[in-house]
Amino acid sequence: MEIVETFREARALRRGTVGFVPTLGFVHEGHLSLIERAALDNDMVLVSLFVNPLQFGPGEDFDAYPRQLERDAALISEAGAKVLFSPSLSEMYPEPALTQVEVPELAIHLDGVERPDHFRGVATIVTKFLAGLQPSRAYFGRKDGQQLAIIQRLVFDLSLPVEIEGCPTVREADGLALSSRNAYLSNVDKAEALALSSGLMAAADLAEAGERRAAALIEAVRDTALDTEFSYVTLMDRRTVHPLEVLTEDAFLAVAARVGPARLIDNIHIDVAGDAIKVDRGVRLDRPSVLYAT
Amino acid sequence: MEIVETFREARALRRGTVGFVPTLGFVHEGHLSLIERAALDNDMVLVSLFVNPLQFGPGEDFDAYPRQLERDAALISEAGAKVLFSPSLSEMYPEPALTQVEVPELAIHLDGVERPDHFRGVATIVTKFLAGLQPSRAYFGRKDGQQLAIIQRLVFDLSLPVEIEGCPTVREADGLALSSRNAYLSNVDKAEALALSSGLMAAADLAEAGERRAAALIEAVRDTALDTEFSYVTLMDRRTVHPLEVLTEDAFLAVAARVGPARLIDNIHIDVAGDAIKVDRGVRLDRPSVLYAT
Repeated sequence: MEIVETFREARALRRGTVGFVPTLGFVHEGHLSLIERAALDNDMVLVSLFVNPLQFGPGEDFDAYPRQLERDAALISEAGAKVLFSPSLSEMYPEPALTQVEVPELAIHLDGVERPDHFRGVATIVTKFLAGLQPSRAYFGRKDGQQLAIIQRLVFDLSLPVEIEGCPTVREADGLALSSRNAYLSNVDKAEALALSSGLMAAADLAEAGERRAAALIEAVRDTALDTEFSYVTLMDRRTVHPLEVLTEDAFLAVAARVGPARLIDNIHIDVAGDAIKVDRGVRLDRPSVLYAT
Repeated sequence: MEIVETFREARALRRGTVGFVPTLGFVHEGHLSLIERAALDNDMVLVSLFVNPLQFGPGEDFDAYPRQLERDAALISEAGAKVLFSPSLSEMYPEPALTQVEVPELAIHLDGVERPDHFRGVATIVTKFLAGLQPSRAYFGRKDGQQLAIIQRLVFDLSLPVEIEGCPTVREADGLALSSRNAYLSNVDKAEALALSSGLMAAADLAEAGERRAAALIEAVRDTALDTEFSYVTLMDRRTVHPLEVLTEDAFLAVAARVGPARLIDNIHIDVAGDAIKVDRGVRLDRPSVLYAT
């Protein structure tokens, strides 16, 4: 695997179809599954590793966010990437970033409420990566369902010639969705954090049993996680990221809660095709995550 | 010249280096000079023709804007374009455009004041064209100095792999800067409109004679055009589009005024290299513009 620091070098290494996986680093099996999938679909895989200050709000963990290039490079290479694009702050922002890309209509709800600037930062840097690296396909986890919807929409609206692939959430063996921020959690926090995925799995069972009412699915989550203080539990239209009352469109059931020092999110994607309901519950590791390897 | 209606077809016709010239149609020698310049610099020239509703404000002339595809195609082909991309509204916006691209810091002054949404519309569609068509170079007139600065900045910020070329303003024989909207002017309006370019030329003389104070250059414009009600006469830093008090950076001296039914803008670009001052006054036609051909 080659490690490069400039857009120019990264573009020059493109060969055939290019699958792109953007990361903030401190990668886990969620990222690695995206890289493996990209390696199957494309002639080569390009991964970016950049902790983007624009998508952290004031008081968020930009400074504390773990940066371990050697660890990350080894894992990313092993998963099948051919090029790692690891730009410096000055390559990404040689001057202050004055250009903003946003999809305000899709950022009204969920994390747009508590993190008003977050999705503008994400949309702007993803546009920059896609425009500047010109991959054939780009891979994102379904765990960040609102982010995925925003990226799909901006690619559509801006006619970017790239296919966006949303991929299943990877979970720890007990169900907790993988996140680099899980590394912040104590064992007590992790036990509490399980409420998110347990609640979602209960709702998944109910949906597969035929329940279509959003209120009932939300209640199933809350009943399974009575001690958890959720920021939200909402059934969202997957394309518009507006709330659904009834499961009539492809949707995601999204939850967020503060657990110990971390703000965690999780969701399940629900496909609706007439009478048929299909829930993507994600996939589970059968071993501890690389997040906890010493 | 081939005429195509989709991004996909336009991309498929790319050969070697591609020079791109976006237009709203009803082209004049300003557009044609961009196409001729693009033909010199590149293996082929791609021109777009699309009246973008997003860059017209409420009450502006979107419906009245002249649409004459056959006339335009003949002129564009003659100037050397190989492909004309003339998308339908539904190719450009199969769904409402929810994604916004903007450079707010560069849109505070000048036309950003009276037309607050205009530059967002321009930045969004130009990003879409550049991302979706992937030209090597794109050509814009210096007459729209603020637009040019915004486009240069968004290309820089978003790492779009395209060179932006700003080209001299083309003027009618008497000095009036070419604009499709000149076709709205009566002969009386046109005589009044001359005040804009005459004022700028007086200021150009003064700058070349060594005057560096913005106030003096602005006064020179206003003194030459006492009967004109300007929306603004301002000396702007060409990169930041913020006002300059003294001519210490590359700049443009910009004017706008309502003349008869039209809002007209004009400017001169002033290069500053130490003690040397160089003014781009544009180029003048030696014959009536194709705007007035019957």
